Amino acid sequence: MRGQMMDVQLTLDVIARRAEQLFPNVAVVGRRPDRSIHRTTYGEMMRRARHLAAGLESLGLSRGDRVATLAWNSVQHAEAYFAVPCGGFVCHTLNLRLHPDELAWIATNAGDRAIIVDDVLLPLLQQFRDRTPIEHVIVINTSGGALPPGAMDFEDVIARGSARPYEFPALAESAAAAMCYTSGTTGKPKGVVYSHRSQVLHCFGECMSSALGMREGDCALAIVPLFHANAWGFPYACAMLGLRQVLPGPHLDAASLLELITGERVTIVAGVPTVMNGILAGLEANPGTYDLSAWQMATVGGSAVPQHMIKAFRERHQVDVVQGWGMTETSPLASISRLPHGFVATGPDDEDAYRARQGRPVPFMEIRARNEETGLIAWDGVAMGELEVRGPWVVGEYYHADDGAERFTPDGWFRTGDIVSIHADGSIQIRDRSKDVIKTGGEWVSSVALENAIMGHPAVAEAAVIGVPEPKWMERPIAVVVCKPGKTVTHEEIVEHLRPHFAKWWMPDATEFIDAIPKSGAGKFLKNVLRERFAARLMT
Amino acid sequence: MRGQMMDVQLTLDVIARRAEQLFPNVAVVGRRPDRSIHRTTYGEMMRRARHLAAGLESLGLSRGDRVATLAWNSVQHAEAYFAVPCGGFVCHTLNLRLHPDELAWIATNAGDRAIIVDDVLLPLLQQFRDRTPIEHVIVINTSGGALPPGAMDFEDVIARGSARPYEFPALAESAAAAMCYTSGTTGKPKGVVYSHRSQVLHCFGECMSSALGMREGDCALAIVPLFHANAWGFPYACAMLGLRQVLPGPHLDAASLLELITGERVTIVAGVPTVMNGILAGLEANPGTYDLSAWQMATVGGSAVPQHMIKAFRERHQVDVVQGWGMTETSPLASISRLPHGFVATGPDDEDAYRARQGRPVPFMEIRARNEETGLIAWDGVAMGELEVRGPWVVGEYYHADDGAERFTPDGWFRTGDIVSIHADGSIQIRDRSKDVIKTGGEWVSSVALENAIMGHPAVAEAAVIGVPEPKWMERPIAVVVCKPGKTVTHEEIVEHLRPHFAKWWMPDATEFIDAIPKSGAGKFLKNVLRERFAARLMT
Repeated sequence: MRGQMMDVQLTLDVIARRAEQLFPNVAVVGRRPDRSIHRTTYGEMMRRARHLAAGLESLGLSRGDRVATLAWNSVQHAEAYFAVPCGGFVCHTLNLRLHPDELAWIATNAGDRAIIVDDVLLPLLQQFRDRTPIEHVIVINTSGGALPPGAMDFEDVIARGSARPYEFPALAESAAAAMCYTSGTTGKPKGVVYSHRSQVLHCFGECMSSALGMREGDCALAIVPLFHANAWGFPYACAMLGLRQVLPGPHLDAASLLELITGERVTIVAGVPTVMNGILAGLEANPGTYDLSAWQMATVGGSAVPQHMIKAFRERHQVDVVQGWGMTETSPLASISRLPHGFVATGPDDEDAYRARQGRPVPFMEIRARNEETGLIAWDGVAMGELEVRGPWVVGEYYHADDGAERFTPDGWFRTGDIVSIHADGSIQIRDRSKDVIKTGGEWVSSVALENAIMGHPAVAEAAVIGVPEPKWMERPIAVVVCKPGKTVTHEEIVEHLRPHFAKWWMPDATEFIDAIPKSGAGKFLKNVLRERFAARLMT
Repeated sequence: MRGQMMDVQLTLDVIARRAEQLFPNVAVVGRRPDRSIHRTTYGEMMRRARHLAAGLESLGLSRGDRVATLAWNSVQHAEAYFAVPCGGFVCHTLNLRLHPDELAWIATNAGDRAIIVDDVLLPLLQQFRDRTPIEHVIVINTSGGALPPGAMDFEDVIARGSARPYEFPALAESAAAAMCYTSGTTGKPKGVVYSHRSQVLHCFGECMSSALGMREGDCALAIVPLFHANAWGFPYACAMLGLRQVLPGPHLDAASLLELITGERVTIVAGVPTVMNGILAGLEANPGTYDLSAWQMATVGGSAVPQHMIKAFRERHQVDVVQGWGMTETSPLASISRLPHGFVATGPDDEDAYRARQGRPVPFMEIRARNEETGLIAWDGVAMGELEVRGPWVVGEYYHADDGAERFTPDGWFRTGDIVSIHADGSIQIRDRSKDVIKTGGEWVSSVALENAIMGHPAVAEAAVIGVPEPKWMERPIAVVVCKPGKTVTHEEIVEHLRPHFAKWWMPDATEFIDAIPKSGAGKFLKNVLRERFAARLMT
């Protein structure tokens, strides 16, 4: 027997229409490359999104065609977030921090037919466009400069679209809405194809009071790029609930961001730990300069959030750091670290330590973890295994990929590659990436736990802990440390700092001091580079 | 191009599993018919729900078979809310306030094969069972009394089910999960068949921070019966988010409810205006008796919430009354009355007046209103038209009904039968039921507005305003008033009370005083009965 409810599809145009009808005068604010402020409203933005969709159609693009973006967080980029999928095309966000060779490969694999590009990023586009199937180049021309031959102005495409009556087409919720490639450190990048349904359900999950819990009246600053994992769904969530939103453009230095937070009375900030660390440093260096009275919450993710950062924001700036965990493959929000009801702290830092976990799954995201030797692990906070997830906004298969099938279990769960423990209350604690795991004498050492502790040392700016070959134990941990400017620390001091908190055999055998930790385009530590570089460190 | 995300179905077993895994020790509390308190947890409840599903299967019930319930709000009834749909059956809640003839007709129309019934309701069941296809009678036997011949004890069915290994079956989200009949005042009752998908999406919509916004740590008292429109989704929403929940059994008098609110430290109460009025009166009559320190919010719906009630709860008891609007056909939550961000009050009662509207639609619920003469009305707060809604948890067609097709527009929207204005911000204001609308001299008078105002008079307990035939204007409003015990009021005083707020031609031509307003099984005013009774009032 079937239900007899309306067959209303979960498509993004419903959100666009809602914002236009209910929140036409709510502000959307962007910072342009020239630092000037661009103010618009949802009413104007959604009207332009419809025109942009009509304009794209008038260029000859068809249902399902990929339209790439290569752009910073701007009003226009957010307009494309609605125009492209609601127009029936697929919004493929390109990561502007990748190498041109990688971008060429990705745009070709995706089959991008058009690209929306910031004028300031045209030099990057020129380095790879010839190696892609891109036919149409649409420039967000904030400088008003001359366009390359054959390129169109974003505003002209909108003008074209406004010339005729147009409504977003009726789409199936199973239709592709967006694409994003994971910056795999092994193998080629792999495409994730989000459906309208997965985008909408992710948005629902995120907006639940027990997830991010943003609400009308909030003002969200998405520092997380629109080219990273759907900007954590913020453009859709904000429009659905009627939040003001602020898009910082290319200006991601602490002073620029703090100026926006103060000036726009931002209440929620979304960003990765590195950027949030910069903001923290900016605040400490300029006490009393910024008015943070509106700012209540920072949702931080992308890599493990150090406990000392959670504590510093809470104690010194009354900002609640809420860690979200997820991946490009999970849309991304999969779990959120909020204190459970009835949490009882037994020590002064217990609350921050809990918040430094990756949290409990959001509704409809299911989790489990597997140790290859023992099977599914117990939820005891001690056993470690690879985290597997299942949910309506988790990738089902990669796009046009030869490899990647091994990331799915026979019963259809996604293998995240994260080595975790799961506590009795269902909270996830990442111990390592499976590829970064350190196994010494048959036992696992959590590099993440050691890194977090080392980064709590006052002289340390960044730290990575890696496993390197060692004759007796097969592999042993060593630390790779970047000191803060003007500060120094010795290996012995690092070990002293760690000793109270970890077993003796977890202590790094050596500490290497370097100028900067190599990072991926997404800002993650490239530990494989470090492992190669220090492979012989304990073999001599 | 299709999205490539996991095909995870939106089915209620995911919520059951989540509650069991993440909130196994969170309390679910019921009051039994003998007034004793029944305490359990989600862990225990979901384990029993699985056994109950297995037990139902062992009785020979098949996928899609209807299992009726005839029960007060109890732990066992809530267990059935999970066991029946997650087991692949359809949970058909029967309204125990209906006449046995109606129940016979409804159970037959639905094709109920089994019924779960409170022992205290067996006498009611005996009055109609013979006229239905019900084969299996399962008794929630809290008194421990003898069962009727052929009936089974609820606990025995659970015991049967626990005897073998069982997991909830994998279901399609399109499968029917539940049924509920609308108590139409014209025509036969009509069945609404909810799917798993619609139940899950309704739950998502409801839990959004901008909707009910309940969260872990809250404790919800669902006074709204489990046999009314899914108890507004509370059993599912509470389980999904890990709220404590309290089920009051048959004891709906103010003293019993206030005792539960105090004793269980309830934070959210859900109930109809009549019951909330009773609670208000109980509080006023017993100042200082009850500890309301935990109670923060009351979500009230089912009929228009009088402004004076909103004000009284806010000013005198610091309880935020949030009006929800919806129907059996909308699962039910369609709109919610929260102050929009930036709301500016220009008078002392403006905020309460705004809250007395039916509010703005929840995400993915779309609204419009149509006047048969002028087409879709402007959102200007003045024009009136019949409200039409569209959304993934709105009925698409009635079950086995000969009539009802006229409730759907040619383009697939549902005609609610409510005459509304829509304000510029998208908030709905109900002016009348379309069948209760008063048209005098070609103009509409809002009976709801007049009733609310009359009920604000200190001597008035209840008031209905109806249109009756009148020679000159075709139809004129008259008031039907129930005075508070020991109070009296005259027609002239009623008109004096109304005069400052309404046009002269809205004034009732007469006031009739009666002992009680006749009500439907769902507690709604039966204005057709009043119209018949007073049809000649202005013709003499």
